[in-house]
Amino acid sequence: MKDNGGLLIVLSGPSGAGKGTLCKELLHRQNSVKFSVSATTRAPRPGEVNGLSYYFRTQEEFQSMIENHELLEWAEFCGNYYGTPLFAVQKHLEAGYDVILEIDIQGALQVKKRFPQGVFIFIMPPSLNILSERIRGRGTECEEDIQQRLAKAEQEMKYIPEYDYLIENDDIIDGVDKLRSIIIAEKCRVKRKQCM
Amino acid sequence: MKDNGGLLIVLSGPSGAGKGTLCKELLHRQNSVKFSVSATTRAPRPGEVNGLSYYFRTQEEFQSMIENHELLEWAEFCGNYYGTPLFAVQKHLEAGYDVILEIDIQGALQVKKRFPQGVFIFIMPPSLNILSERIRGRGTECEEDIQQRLAKAEQEMKYIPEYDYLIENDDIIDGVDKLRSIIIAEKCRVKRKQCM
Repeated sequence: MKDNGGLLIVLSGPSGAGKGTLCKELLHRQNSVKFSVSATTRAPRPGEVNGLSYYFRTQEEFQSMIENHELLEWAEFCGNYYGTPLFAVQKHLEAGYDVILEIDIQGALQVKKRFPQGVFIFIMPPSLNILSERIRGRGTECEEDIQQRLAKAEQEMKYIPEYDYLIENDDIIDGVDKLRSIIIAEKCRVKRKQCM
Repeated sequence: MKDNGGLLIVLSGPSGAGKGTLCKELLHRQNSVKFSVSATTRAPRPGEVNGLSYYFRTQEEFQSMIENHELLEWAEFCGNYYGTPLFAVQKHLEAGYDVILEIDIQGALQVKKRFPQGVFIFIMPPSLNILSERIRGRGTECEEDIQQRLAKAEQEMKYIPEYDYLIENDDIIDGVDKLRSIIIAEKCRVKRKQCM
């Protein structure tokens, strides 16, 4: 009985919910998982590396990717564009790797239409207060951005029913264990097995 | 956001697939899990303890449990009756424990009708040859029983599509990890969360 290639795993959730840390920890532990690198027009933050953190693109380059249907999903946020290059995702899935997309909720809904067999996971911080502290702790956003992100977080939580799983990310060890468990469990799902 | 009590986890699969060992290992690791002790009319095997391995009952006692609707499911196999006492299961679930039922496939189908929210897991040995070796290795069955069990195993595998998950139990460490992962993942499912 064979499995059907890799899993497409979509992680969304409020900015500051800990998605990035979860992904990094998972990648350390699971060789079968590849992280999808997004393209963006926003400026790099300190320490971010082109091609690893993001593919940093100009507005013109990004527009061209949209027009040539080279993106699985894309969205505009705070005046910047973010998107998922299609080619790399397909290549990894066909090679049997699981691909993690860490994307905006609107992007996730776009992906769900094209890949309903994806695994859609909403990552939630323990509370909006803690979320606010996490964003402030990062120190890369101005106060207006923070208020905008908190308002967006409340809006985003209304979309939880669109997702398959909810990880309440109170604790990173526990959060990674849940994420890893979801991946293992999904691979055991009878509906994903061939020759049934 | 609160969880809805414990999970009812139903394990089925051919005799010799390793269900008993999986359950034992899981119980060692997860305090939240309770094992449902079945009632049976079959004779105890060496080392089996009444009330721990099974509730050993006479034919008359078992008939009375059926008539009084004290069983969640029951089945007859090789001339003996097996069944799941309802009371203990409900008590554990309401207290927030996960309850594991290791039951016959026909019993699982009965439970699925009454508890569609249960988690139905089919445990499969790597091959029928290995299954045959495992049953012989146990040394408690006569040759006719073994042939009957192998034929039944092939029949049972046709019911895999009725289950949510399939664990190919090649390796006990890996099998327990999968079982544990399924339980953790199911607790993260958005559909199981209240107040959505």
